[in-house]
Amino acid sequence: MENIPSLLLKRCVSELAKLPGIGKKSALRLAIHLLKHKPEYAEALGNSIIDMRQNIRFCTRCHNLSENELCEVCNNPKRNQQKICVVENIQDVLYIENTLQFNGTYHILNGVISPMDGISPNELNINSLLKRIEAEDISEVILALPTTIEGDTTNFYLYKKLSEKVKSITTIARGVSIGDELEYIDEITLGRSIINRIPYSTD
Amino acid sequence: MENIPSLLLKRCVSELAKLPGIGKKSALRLAIHLLKHKPEYAEALGNSIIDMRQNIRFCTRCHNLSENELCEVCNNPKRNQQKICVVENIQDVLYIENTLQFNGTYHILNGVISPMDGISPNELNINSLLKRIEAEDISEVILALPTTIEGDTTNFYLYKKLSEKVKSITTIARGVSIGDELEYIDEITLGRSIINRIPYSTD
Repeated sequence: MENIPSLLLKRCVSELAKLPGIGKKSALRLAIHLLKHKPEYAEALGNSIIDMRQNIRFCTRCHNLSENELCEVCNNPKRNQQKICVVENIQDVLYIENTLQFNGTYHILNGVISPMDGISPNELNINSLLKRIEAEDISEVILALPTTIEGDTTNFYLYKKLSEKVKSITTIARGVSIGDELEYIDEITLGRSIINRIPYSTD
Repeated sequence: MENIPSLLLKRCVSELAKLPGIGKKSALRLAIHLLKHKPEYAEALGNSIIDMRQNIRFCTRCHNLSENELCEVCNNPKRNQQKICVVENIQDVLYIENTLQFNGTYHILNGVISPMDGISPNELNINSLLKRIEAEDISEVILALPTTIEGDTTNFYLYKKLSEKVKSITTIARGVSIGDELEYIDEITLGRSIINRIPYSTD
């Protein structure tokens, strides 16, 4: 790809190739796709990227994406402001919102504790979570972190920090996925799903 | 993905998802990647896309990418302007340039004849090729189209049109790839490579 004739194309390809999962060949394919289509499309794409980055900030309370001081969830009086769902990153908020099953607020840690990757509690949005709990009237903290060693470590750390300050600390249920056959479930998940069995319900 | 909270993010995700090979989930991942990195990066990417599309035109002679009336190849007095290599699309020019083995000019058809896809010779840059051959002093036309039925059909069509007007019409060699074992080569390719055998050379 060294011989790309146009400097403008070369620059665009090298910027596109900085995106995760896009190599030099894919970047060239994308750039040529843009060149073959109407200029309006390239303009809309370019401007949407610049506008988004310039105007989206992070909520000063929960660190979610926001166009204002507070995000739409924190600013919504219909949401239960006494519940905080703690998640690893911004995408997780979208995934949980898509389930339509949670009506409280969020707190985005921006990672999980991982000594292997050199991520200590100080690098995460944990202090701001503790401050929220001091300042606001919080009834429940739901830990919705990944079910990995790092996620479990972070859960444990947060539990130690919060257990005396919050009435109810819960984690999302771990168990058998909807549609799974027992044959294909790993032993640990299946074992936990028996230990944590729940009353049968027809809901 | 219906619940993306910010309109700016939603717009950026939907523009990114129009790119070939990028679905809604990848588009969201890319957008969040951009949000997590410096604003300068999003700005450089967005501007490089807009600049490229606004300023790159197509060479009026060979239809290659160009920032001027004529592309760098057509404008280069060191290139042999009497040879035309006919290719399907813009990328093919880059691939052939990367081999450093061709010093002539190109002509980009922008597709190949394909009755199945409704692509007739009139939709391709064939008329402009015929006009070049009338107007310029062309000694050789090299057909470097894909080795598919559509490519072969286009080769045949061009040969019929050009054979009386150009001294030499050639196609790129078809044969065994460098590094291939005979065991894994399809019969047609191997058969052709015997029919079209060439004098042994130690070059």
